[in-house]
Amino acid sequence: MIKNPFFENKGPFKLPSLIYNDKTGLKPESGIGSLPEDVLISDVKNLNDANENDITFLHSTKYKELADTTKAFACITKESLIKFLPTKCRKICVENVLLLTAQVTEQFYPDSIIDDNYFNLKPINEIFNNIISGKNTFVGPNVKIGENTKIGHNTIIEQNVIIGNNCHIGSNTILRNTFLEDNVHILDSSIVGKKGFGFMPSKKKNYRYPHIGYVYIKKNSEIGSGSTIDRGSLSATIIGENTFLDNQVHIAHNVKIGDNCIIAGQVGIAGSSTLGNNVMIGGQAGISGHLKVGNNVQIGGGSGVIKNIPDNTKVMGYPAVEIKNFLKKNKKNND
Amino acid sequence: MIKNPFFENKGPFKLPSLIYNDKTGLKPESGIGSLPEDVLISDVKNLNDANENDITFLHSTKYKELADTTKAFACITKESLIKFLPTKCRKICVENVLLLTAQVTEQFYPDSIIDDNYFNLKPINEIFNNIISGKNTFVGPNVKIGENTKIGHNTIIEQNVIIGNNCHIGSNTILRNTFLEDNVHILDSSIVGKKGFGFMPSKKKNYRYPHIGYVYIKKNSEIGSGSTIDRGSLSATIIGENTFLDNQVHIAHNVKIGDNCIIAGQVGIAGSSTLGNNVMIGGQAGISGHLKVGNNVQIGGGSGVIKNIPDNTKVMGYPAVEIKNFLKKNKKNND
Amino acid sequence: MIKNPFFENKGPFKLPSLIYNDKTGLKPESGIGSLPEDVLISDVKNLNDANENDITFLHSTKYKELADTTKAFACITKESLIKFLPTKCRKICVENVLLLTAQVTEQFYPDSIIDDNYFNLKPINEIFNNIISGKNTFVGPNVKIGENTKIGHNTIIEQNVIIGNNCHIGSNTILRNTFLEDNVHILDSSIVGKKGFGFMPSKKKNYRYPHIGYVYIKKNSEIGSGSTIDRGSLSATIIGENTFLDNQVHIAHNVKIGDNCIIAGQVGIAGSSTLGNNVMIGGQAGISGHLKVGNNVQIGGGSGVIKNIPDNTKVMGYPAVEIKNFLKKNKKNND
Repeated sequence: MIKNPFFENKGPFKLPSLIYNDKTGLKPESGIGSLPEDVLISDVKNLNDANENDITFLHSTKYKELADTTKAFACITKESLIKFLPTKCRKICVENVLLLTAQVTEQFYPDSIIDDNYFNLKPINEIFNNIISGKNTFVGPNVKIGENTKIGHNTIIEQNVIIGNNCHIGSNTILRNTFLEDNVHILDSSIVGKKGFGFMPSKKKNYRYPHIGYVYIKKNSEIGSGSTIDRGSLSATIIGENTFLDNQVHIAHNVKIGDNCIIAGQVGIAGSSTLGNNVMIGGQAGISGHLKVGNNVQIGGGSGVIKNIPDNTKVMGYPAVEIKNFLKKNKKNND
Repeated sequence: MIKNPFFENKGPFKLPSLIYNDKTGLKPESGIGSLPEDVLISDVKNLNDANENDITFLHSTKYKELADTTKAFACITKESLIKFLPTKCRKICVENVLLLTAQVTEQFYPDSIIDDNYFNLKPINEIFNNIISGKNTFVGPNVKIGENTKIGHNTIIEQNVIIGNNCHIGSNTILRNTFLEDNVHILDSSIVGKKGFGFMPSKKKNYRYPHIGYVYIKKNSEIGSGSTIDRGSLSATIIGENTFLDNQVHIAHNVKIGDNCIIAGQVGIAGSSTLGNNVMIGGQAGISGHLKVGNNVQIGGGSGVIKNIPDNTKVMGYPAVEIKNFLKKNKKNND
Repeated sequence: MIKNPFFENKGPFKLPSLIYNDKTGLKPESGIGSLPEDVLISDVKNLNDANENDITFLHSTKYKELADTTKAFACITKESLIKFLPTKCRKICVENVLLLTAQVTEQFYPDSIIDDNYFNLKPINEIFNNIISGKNTFVGPNVKIGENTKIGHNTIIEQNVIIGNNCHIGSNTILRNTFLEDNVHILDSSIVGKKGFGFMPSKKKNYRYPHIGYVYIKKNSEIGSGSTIDRGSLSATIIGENTFLDNQVHIAHNVKIGDNCIIAGQVGIAGSSTLGNNVMIGGQAGISGHLKVGNNVQIGGGSGVIKNIPDNTKVMGYPAVEIKNFLKKNKKNND
């Protein structure tokens, strides 16, 4: 996967200064104990993406299999999950794993919490001669746009966005923290790459989780009008090759959709779910978060998917069940 | 509650001239009888907001408890509801209560029917030096914006809108008839404060109801991208403190949402429903109009709520029932 | 119906050159046989709209009744459907009827596949003196706008769009391939007339179907904020007289809605369905494609309609059933 160019990493940091400071409110006396001064931590990453100089986190048994093989130098976790981590990984035990992870991430990427660093824009035709573009369309620094790409009116393309060749971007569209491969179509009024709906709920003032990921849309795909695709929190939100989304679709952060999928209007996919290849989803269907939908799955319009779906399955209903069971159930109800 | 600065009140009016005129098509001979010439009616208000010089309306037994204590000088109603109103309140009986109420409201607030009085705008940076703002963003007369607020591109902020300190307003966003307290985030392409979907159906040409209310969003709240929040008809649509809405949420007119609520993507809440504090709503759920959802309620994604929900309840399904009944029902169906 | 002015017809073509070429990849040896050289084909149309010099298509028994009376000179179809067509109609049999139809349509209307021919715009006030309009609103060539119409900010009105008298068009709105009769209201951020979600799925690269239709909105109607109305593929998407749509509604290509309908927020109607007059649809309901909903039908909020609904019926549920059956079913489930 391409290196994330969207957020500047302010690291490395020494481990004690990363954990013990005013932002975290933690001190060595908090029970975590002394931390080695001699290691520079480069980044915060997922369990499976972390390298030897990174810090990671483990907050749920759901991820225990990934924990076992993490290469991270240190891991923010809680007492009950220590046993799933490698011996050599330094455990940092706290009560609220996600809160400390957010506070650590924020130190590496202070600009990732609020989407407002987009004021340094210029008219697109001052920068790009090779582009056909509309009125009042602006681009930020370091934007790259391929050959033969067309961009509509009133569109905002923020810093570091990369757009391939032969792409079509509509009007009133906003792209940030986004890579588009070749021949991608983003239709009017879509918003791609904004921060996801992720935060630690807290009375009086929720704690916004930093979203340092991005959106990656593979070649030949299409995103319908009025759709929203949020960027990943630590990794990417991915739309596969030749996958078409209709209007008013909502794709939450960290969702990964395979190739050749067809997703009809007003569908919503909640955070961190993954879809295989050749998935077809009817209009207004919804998929809950953290689920796995297999290859060649068909989901009926209006369905609500609340559990994993194996390959080659057709489901329908709320909660969505195999279509033959749905029909049987309805028959029974109508007797 | 703050006085509504968004619509100019053309009153006061004498009661007979308010009721008997070409707009209403009513005459003293219509059966309503003579009305006192010596009282000036100041405003049209809800039963419980009306003062001694106001006119109000009662069109359903649903509001009979509020009727009993109204201070209004006069009330538009129908014969069968007269008994619920105080003796000293002057009853104006007609067949179509809402139609006459609309016609009376329109006389007080002729500019409230169609949202098109927004042409007197200026570039935001001609008016505000203390604001970081994007390209092609315009503000109307009498807009107030607090310190350290940031506003994106192509955004329209119409007359009299009040925005607090430390707010973040996205791009392609429209704010009208709206108050934002401090530290409110309105993300890209949201539309806040437009008139609600309220009208008297009528063959050939529906009669648009005047919407003279506004939207009030309390501090530390967030409204996701592509969301629509309609203003109240006579009162306010309210989003409570520290309440977060995800993308593509629709909040209809007069809805009142409490504090610390979390509302996921593509949720819709129909007109005049109220939500307590700490309510959590999963993606794509819908709530019908005129309902009361209590405190600490959790509503599963995709649910359809069609009746009131008491405090501390978890519901799911369509129609939404307590979650234990939903699971039992599904188990039974799958037997 | 008005002649479609939105797409230039590059015909007429001789039949053999239309069918046998590099785009279709077909040759006379493909099994279709020789085609007459002496006839000029003027256009591609639906079975019932086609004239004596047009080509049409028949891909499903669903349309066999229309096939019987088509006036088309030639029809793209498959072996099993030949029997439904008039003797004198020249049959062109292929395996993938829709693919060849798309390829033929594309030859007549090469500009209809991608919505990007909208760059030749001018500021609206350079062209129209009779219009009150906002900032940064642009119009394309040959746009017509009636008297006393008002148009908001950042709005794009593309070539050949026709707007009646007394219309109100909001801000951030996009109109293309659209006719509006008098007194139509299109609220903020709506997108009217974009191409529909229609294509032939194909691994690696879906084949986009040309959408040469338009959107026709009859007088006194209203389209809510953030709504999307796609244009027809060969004919029109129609919104009837005095029909009101709330916010975030999605109307797919070829949908035809009657007069005096009321459609609440976040409703979705899939392609080619037709609705009668006086239809009421509650919030978040969905209607599948190719269905017929009768006159005076009421559809409960959140319902999923998957079959035709006769006149004067009230339905609810998923799948939607008559409301009395829905209530009975729920009662049984809760026993």
